[in-house]
Amino acid sequence: MSIKKRLETFRNYMSEKEIELSLIWEPDNQYYLSGFRAISYSRPIVTLISHDQTELIVPGLEEVHAAEKANVDKLYVYFEQIDMRHREVSYLDHLSKLLKTYPFGTKLGVEVEVLPSSVYLFLKQLGFELVDIGQKVVNMRAIKDEYEIERLKVAGKLSDYALDESLRHARVGISELEFDSCGDRLLLGIASKDYPEEIVGYEDWTCSGVKRSEKPHLYSSTRKFEDGDVVIHSRQVWFNGYRAENERTFFVGQPSEKQKDLLKLAVEAQQVGMDMIRPGITAKEVDLASYEVFNKAGYGEYVNHRVGHGLGLSEHEEPYLRFDNELVLQEGMVYTIEPGIYVPGLGGYRHSDTVILTKSGSYSITHYPRGIDSLIF
Amino acid sequence: MSIKKRLETFRNYMSEKEIELSLIWEPDNQYYLSGFRAISYSRPIVTLISHDQTELIVPGLEEVHAAEKANVDKLYVYFEQIDMRHREVSYLDHLSKLLKTYPFGTKLGVEVEVLPSSVYLFLKQLGFELVDIGQKVVNMRAIKDEYEIERLKVAGKLSDYALDESLRHARVGISELEFDSCGDRLLLGIASKDYPEEIVGYEDWTCSGVKRSEKPHLYSSTRKFEDGDVVIHSRQVWFNGYRAENERTFFVGQPSEKQKDLLKLAVEAQQVGMDMIRPGITAKEVDLASYEVFNKAGYGEYVNHRVGHGLGLSEHEEPYLRFDNELVLQEGMVYTIEPGIYVPGLGGYRHSDTVILTKSGSYSITHYPRGIDSLIF
Repeated sequence: MSIKKRLETFRNYMSEKEIELSLIWEPDNQYYLSGFRAISYSRPIVTLISHDQTELIVPGLEEVHAAEKANVDKLYVYFEQIDMRHREVSYLDHLSKLLKTYPFGTKLGVEVEVLPSSVYLFLKQLGFELVDIGQKVVNMRAIKDEYEIERLKVAGKLSDYALDESLRHARVGISELEFDSCGDRLLLGIASKDYPEEIVGYEDWTCSGVKRSEKPHLYSSTRKFEDGDVVIHSRQVWFNGYRAENERTFFVGQPSEKQKDLLKLAVEAQQVGMDMIRPGITAKEVDLASYEVFNKAGYGEYVNHRVGHGLGLSEHEEPYLRFDNELVLQEGMVYTIEPGIYVPGLGGYRHSDTVILTKSGSYSITHYPRGIDSLIF
Repeated sequence: MSIKKRLETFRNYMSEKEIELSLIWEPDNQYYLSGFRAISYSRPIVTLISHDQTELIVPGLEEVHAAEKANVDKLYVYFEQIDMRHREVSYLDHLSKLLKTYPFGTKLGVEVEVLPSSVYLFLKQLGFELVDIGQKVVNMRAIKDEYEIERLKVAGKLSDYALDESLRHARVGISELEFDSCGDRLLLGIASKDYPEEIVGYEDWTCSGVKRSEKPHLYSSTRKFEDGDVVIHSRQVWFNGYRAENERTFFVGQPSEKQKDLLKLAVEAQQVGMDMIRPGITAKEVDLASYEVFNKAGYGEYVNHRVGHGLGLSEHEEPYLRFDNELVLQEGMVYTIEPGIYVPGLGGYRHSDTVILTKSGSYSITHYPRGIDSLIF
């Protein structure tokens, strides 16, 4: 992972905008720029990037971890045990000390879309001029390098194994959560064998039956599959932080002709999107092309989300494939293609695959069959 | 779940502080005050609470879900498909409309510790006086009612099953992630049988071996257990949103005498904390009592985190059991008790149990044995 190169690009941007220092708050952005990620929750971690050095503020329980993993020049630790009461006991103690060396009116880069307002106000009060650098990091992260693409491919492969294994267990009486866990278990076994000492994770959501699949996103529940259910199974797998998404709509038992048609339509809309996405096309063109498939068939009103989102370190990454996004797509971008329709009384229909843009086109890193013949159990 | 009663309490606070309207951003706070929670990621959801009504702004793909689940008076939807381009296409479109009816200088309650600064600035620009209501919601959420405690107990029970099942699979050669998944699978099976059509979730982290367990928190990896490993297995299970935490330190093969002593010390420190916690005691007293056990034994310097955190809808909830927290504990509070030491070359030692404060004492909702005889595999 070329942290050095990323920092160079980021610092060039800071120079251009006359930003002296940037404060990075968002965990995935911190990982991107420092290589360090922790399970943090209630204990803030802060990365500071100046033109000369990078600094990291962590809670005591992350000291050893950060010393080992973080690509930073300086590490500051705050404590939460009584014997350290005369030292720093909050990240703000460090931040105050580090920031007071800068003169009034210094330009400080922050992620305004993410930074909590209490921290924003704290920085403002110290006399900084606050400037957004969030969009720059979004734009940098949107273009994946070779290292990132290799990790995404592994995630895609593992998600295929998991999807296949869960689908082998699709039957009346299995609950959504049990169905999910079949695939999880297999993927963890394969990952443990093939990729020793790496971080692998996953998240699944399954909406089974007409009533639940009418809603595009729900947490999996203990509801059991019933005969005739249409089911949307949604899955993300990450390998060392990089995520692939893999979703299939399938039937438990025989669907009606109408339901078959709806799934075929969703596959067609997805294929049109996958055929269209490539460098030089705008984000909105991909969205509109898929939408038009539904619309022409008379189902436009049952579309309620964009055709896809960026993917990488976060579950959803900007920029989005949305009807009003004029962005011109580039090589190295990664997108889900997942047009869907949700029809009252008939259920929801959506596959999602993850595609990587090449110089002249794109390819999918998820491969489970999409045709209806493979999706009736 | 008594949303009505919660809103009443919250509105009384708003009256007291002369707050006309509150904007709730944090998902768990929204769930607490409206009963609605979605997988949202990149699509903001906003809850507005005035003295007369509650309003909810959701993206199109959550419309059906929100109409079904949200205890609110009005629902506003924003869209992301081209045929809706003349309607609201961002949550800000709704927010602008809804907020412009309020006169300049109106007091608006926001969660300053959570609300993104971009939203804060947007609200400020509309002429509102922004006041923090985050701490009030924290305080309300800290005291659990009967409904919440019932859910926590189920979560505790499921976590015990899962912990037991994972520990049955502790052996040389199993990876951390495979070890986790044994318990996950069992708990999902039991939940599917005993609690139909409910939402259940879990999260595990396992740090195996001296090197990894020296760090209190790490994501589980594909590292395989080795003979002589000390392992910290950490697990949260949630049942309809309410979380129990259950952690055990154990050995794969025979530990050294020194390691046995360290685990015994951690158990003793935990027992002291569990014996002490009750209404009327301050948060810091619990922390200091457990710390003193380590300190007296000469291990104070190897403590690097507080003794426990609040628990409920979020992974970690304020207020914390920390050396500098003077808060007097009350009936209905829920805490983890999890003192730990992390000794270079010898590994980490920490059990965590979840306790609920009663009128005169407390009881644990997690029950796996804590003694060393039960924890060598």
